[in-house]
Amino acid sequence: MDLKRIGVFTSGGDSPGMNACIRASTRRAIAEGLEVIGIKRGYAGMIDGDYVEMDRQSVSNILQQGGTILKSARSERFRTPEGRAEAAAKLREAGIDALVAIGGDGTLQGATHLANEHGIAVVGCPGTIDNDLFGTDETIGFDTALNTALDSIDKIRDTADAHDRLFLVEVMGRDTGFIALACGIGGGAELVLIPEMMTDVISIKDRILSLMAAQSRSSIVVVAEGDELGGAHRIRQALAEDPAFDRIDTRVSVLGHIQRGGSPTARDRVLASRLGAAAVEALLEGHDGVMVGIVNNDLKLTPMRNVWARKKDVDYDLLQLTALLS
Amino acid sequence: MDLKRIGVFTSGGDSPGMNACIRASTRRAIAEGLEVIGIKRGYAGMIDGDYVEMDRQSVSNILQQGGTILKSARSERFRTPEGRAEAAAKLREAGIDALVAIGGDGTLQGATHLANEHGIAVVGCPGTIDNDLFGTDETIGFDTALNTALDSIDKIRDTADAHDRLFLVEVMGRDTGFIALACGIGGGAELVLIPEMMTDVISIKDRILSLMAAQSRSSIVVVAEGDELGGAHRIRQALAEDPAFDRIDTRVSVLGHIQRGGSPTARDRVLASRLGAAAVEALLEGHDGVMVGIVNNDLKLTPMRNVWARKKDVDYDLLQLTALLS
Amino acid sequence: MDLKRIGVFTSGGDSPGMNACIRASTRRAIAEGLEVIGIKRGYAGMIDGDYVEMDRQSVSNILQQGGTILKSARSERFRTPEGRAEAAAKLREAGIDALVAIGGDGTLQGATHLANEHGIAVVGCPGTIDNDLFGTDETIGFDTALNTALDSIDKIRDTADAHDRLFLVEVMGRDTGFIALACGIGGGAELVLIPEMMTDVISIKDRILSLMAAQSRSSIVVVAEGDELGGAHRIRQALAEDPAFDRIDTRVSVLGHIQRGGSPTARDRVLASRLGAAAVEALLEGHDGVMVGIVNNDLKLTPMRNVWARKKDVDYDLLQLTALLS
Amino acid sequence: MDLKRIGVFTSGGDSPGMNACIRASTRRAIAEGLEVIGIKRGYAGMIDGDYVEMDRQSVSNILQQGGTILKSARSERFRTPEGRAEAAAKLREAGIDALVAIGGDGTLQGATHLANEHGIAVVGCPGTIDNDLFGTDETIGFDTALNTALDSIDKIRDTADAHDRLFLVEVMGRDTGFIALACGIGGGAELVLIPEMMTDVISIKDRILSLMAAQSRSSIVVVAEGDELGGAHRIRQALAEDPAFDRIDTRVSVLGHIQRGGSPTARDRVLASRLGAAAVEALLEGHDGVMVGIVNNDLKLTPMRNVWARKKDVDYDLLQLTALLS
Repeated sequence: MDLKRIGVFTSGGDSPGMNACIRASTRRAIAEGLEVIGIKRGYAGMIDGDYVEMDRQSVSNILQQGGTILKSARSERFRTPEGRAEAAAKLREAGIDALVAIGGDGTLQGATHLANEHGIAVVGCPGTIDNDLFGTDETIGFDTALNTALDSIDKIRDTADAHDRLFLVEVMGRDTGFIALACGIGGGAELVLIPEMMTDVISIKDRILSLMAAQSRSSIVVVAEGDELGGAHRIRQALAEDPAFDRIDTRVSVLGHIQRGGSPTARDRVLASRLGAAAVEALLEGHDGVMVGIVNNDLKLTPMRNVWARKKDVDYDLLQLTALLS
Repeated sequence: MDLKRIGVFTSGGDSPGMNACIRASTRRAIAEGLEVIGIKRGYAGMIDGDYVEMDRQSVSNILQQGGTILKSARSERFRTPEGRAEAAAKLREAGIDALVAIGGDGTLQGATHLANEHGIAVVGCPGTIDNDLFGTDETIGFDTALNTALDSIDKIRDTADAHDRLFLVEVMGRDTGFIALACGIGGGAELVLIPEMMTDVISIKDRILSLMAAQSRSSIVVVAEGDELGGAHRIRQALAEDPAFDRIDTRVSVLGHIQRGGSPTARDRVLASRLGAAAVEALLEGHDGVMVGIVNNDLKLTPMRNVWARKKDVDYDLLQLTALLS
Repeated sequence: MDLKRIGVFTSGGDSPGMNACIRASTRRAIAEGLEVIGIKRGYAGMIDGDYVEMDRQSVSNILQQGGTILKSARSERFRTPEGRAEAAAKLREAGIDALVAIGGDGTLQGATHLANEHGIAVVGCPGTIDNDLFGTDETIGFDTALNTALDSIDKIRDTADAHDRLFLVEVMGRDTGFIALACGIGGGAELVLIPEMMTDVISIKDRILSLMAAQSRSSIVVVAEGDELGGAHRIRQALAEDPAFDRIDTRVSVLGHIQRGGSPTARDRVLASRLGAAAVEALLEGHDGVMVGIVNNDLKLTPMRNVWARKKDVDYDLLQLTALLS
Repeated sequence: MDLKRIGVFTSGGDSPGMNACIRASTRRAIAEGLEVIGIKRGYAGMIDGDYVEMDRQSVSNILQQGGTILKSARSERFRTPEGRAEAAAKLREAGIDALVAIGGDGTLQGATHLANEHGIAVVGCPGTIDNDLFGTDETIGFDTALNTALDSIDKIRDTADAHDRLFLVEVMGRDTGFIALACGIGGGAELVLIPEMMTDVISIKDRILSLMAAQSRSSIVVVAEGDELGGAHRIRQALAEDPAFDRIDTRVSVLGHIQRGGSPTARDRVLASRLGAAAVEALLEGHDGVMVGIVNNDLKLTPMRNVWARKKDVDYDLLQLTALLS
């Protein structure tokens, strides 16, 4: 295809590094003589024609900023064929030949529908803190979210130690335990509960009681929000039903939205820059319907449908390592 | 009094800088030829005789650490005259002539009872993140907690902006709005709700709607946990009852315990070092039943009973400033 | 005076919080119905007419950013009466009635000349990391620079301890030791060298040797760049001349420009916001030729000539405290 | 081999994460019933018999600390066959069957000599911020050093922008450009100079002049300390010889030792924990003379001689990407 003008957008939950990715796509495209249109507020703005022309200056000084200058939004309309037809019409009207889509699996599914139904060329960049996309070893934002969560756990450890408390710390991860697992190892947690593993309340109780009964000490349990038992509050209730926990001062901390923001880490900036540039290169080479990722340190293209159809496994060895080291 | 041996302890909620204060008291006392006993787990350990001898090395490399190496705990027994008699007996047995008590108003009240009932000399250091003690412009830990909360608000702003959301961010402050107010100014919040001011739901709604209806944008409301309407979750419910809020994507973030931990800021380290040393000097000069503080940049001794009897006001001008600048 | 339009500018070395100050002045003025002109690149831009109209949006999302969106520059021309006449003419041409000047003593001196020679009303805000302005307990940027320096010293302590090294760490402070002193206390330094005190090489050597000869351990000496012996490199040379230092592994770290940048701390944001707003209020009340500051927690106006004519003393007690606690 | 007692030590320049690695080796070994001896001050302490018994508590609360609790030191004696014979004798005397060596190539070379000459089993862990060891995609400490350097560059960007300055920022990397390259991408640097590429002063000048002459703006050049032209100060001199640079305000910042310290990032903690545990497992499986590493996300053993004999290449594509995106 002879590309002239591409659109760039972010959609779904924001993640740190999205701006670095927007910058890379924009500058990489301009360096090739392409025109770049920023589509505001994801699919909602795509339908509304909320478009803005981008030059090199538009993406100045955003590399280090969290959030997304193009904003993100939900769009119910885009979930309908009619909505997508509107979006495609608006894109055509604006002379946009191809898209760089930055976001998680919902974003990429939407893009695939758009491509299949209306022939819009699209290449995806994996932007989500959850790291749950097949086709890339890491997603943009994961490393930053992880460090934010870990920094919080370090702070909680201070106060847990001061009072010999049990803390249940809930981190993000609706379907996956990537953040929880790495926080468990990195924060020296006594236990990690993730959606990928059945959580057995009895063995949790035993483990905590055996640790905390023997000697006065603190313990930290990292809980992924998507654990099938429910989040940290639910688990606290389950523990509280056992009278043995009456004398254990138990607290809950839900880290929540702070994990989405903040200046991206070095790793996320480099990853986002590489992927943002690679997405444009892939479009120029005629690829379509693929996501760019890094697998074993190399750039790799994966058909979009595989990205959400195939499951990326956490490293189960890390679960065992947590138990051995804590 | 001819001091030979002093005890140092922390009690109540921990705050960043307590370790710097322990270090300063210990080293200042040793430099004067005193012996120093660390009392573990606050009043609980005081009754149990959980004492440890301290030398210069005992407090090495703790200046920059959050939490408290002497730990803290609640003690129901100490709330009774019998418990305090036990504590006094244990202190006498260990040859402890005087105490440096580091903590908030509960800690200082306990110390005053001990002094009044059993003639134990005690000087207090204001250690609490809440900054709610009369007799010092700032308490040890306030500046660190404030920066931790503000750092979180900066991160939340990223994601609020990306989605044009309303965020209700709950910060610590059961009885006072010091953290909330400073976070409001420093975080560019649209509103700040504090226990010291009646919160009028109708005017809150008006303010938010007038800001967010006119244009798509984000807003942040900082809520002190002790606001008389209840915390952030309660306020969200109150807003949700109004149908005008149906189209405002509203989220709650409760920052919680992360505000207690972490390496103390420069300001808290200097404050804690000055106060910890000054407490020992006050004991050596024969003072008793006083808290050391910094008022208008100078060290000042305040009778303990005033510390909790008198109310330290927040700066109401800052409330108005928030509204003007946001 | 009946103000209609004010100019805001930053000049001299930048400091964290300048943007928060620009934001506060701008929004405070707009809230009073004033027009606000941003003058770019300090006095250089004032002469060149490099002016930009500011509205509320112009200062959106800058509260948390280091540097200055209005930029800063040196201007040789402005040091001459002719240059200042040009500047005054350009200001009049642009209809600017009064100025908010944000910077250090050079900035405020320049503003005073402009006021005296051409009758331009001006109120100053103390923006410098050095904290060396009379009339305010703290300057905008000092707290941030201090925390940046201290964070670096914490990191250096890790590596110093690992190798039992002596580190000479140079921090900013051409004429004053405010940063050095607070870093000394906060970083647990063994020695602090500041311009305000004569540095006696012999006693430095004795102190270091007595500390490091007795046992293998690390030591940190904090050196203000303006120490009359010269910076850290010079002091290292002086030590190296003594053969007793042959077996002490000595390193130098000059922290340099990192101390000027970075997101401002909570304290600097609140200070900058209060002073930026207060400067506009002072202009509205008819004040002129004054600097706004915070003295003993209250806003205070100080005649500009006093700001640089009078010396603000460091707290010499802190020097002694460093020695006692390290 | 039937292992009973292993020694763990760190040597060479310290790097963040060494403590996490010590902890993992120690606890992993204890979980297998082994005894663990900590050898203080690297090879110097190995010769001196500066040994300490380690239990699970010995490595408590060190996971998040920079530096190394076992300390590091240079040893001239160990460079001689006699010194190594002394070391081997002391190890045998202490009943140490095998070693976990944590450090860079000098450390691993020393360990190999010890193994070859005296039959001491040894497994190495790659601990160096430089990331220049073949056999692992990343070394322990690299990610932290990179983020520390990048954080400094972000701060310098603030002040560079405020004054439209050219900054030459020198980062660590005596022989390699790993840190420099990633900082270049992550910091949006205009140029990156690394030892692996010949630095052409003329083309550097052209690039800077073409960027900075056209419009007033800042530029950042990241220089690896080992660049063959010399460090940042030398390059500044080379630029200063050209009169075209008279009007470019050029500054140098040498980041230096701060890059070695600080609490390790999540990534470094996980890496160090995995490798520290894997080193013990390798010893138990009878491996010897190998380094554990992570290659393409999997644990891998590499013969030690390959670690320094083979060169690990930087990703040259990143150099080009820097130019395209800045």
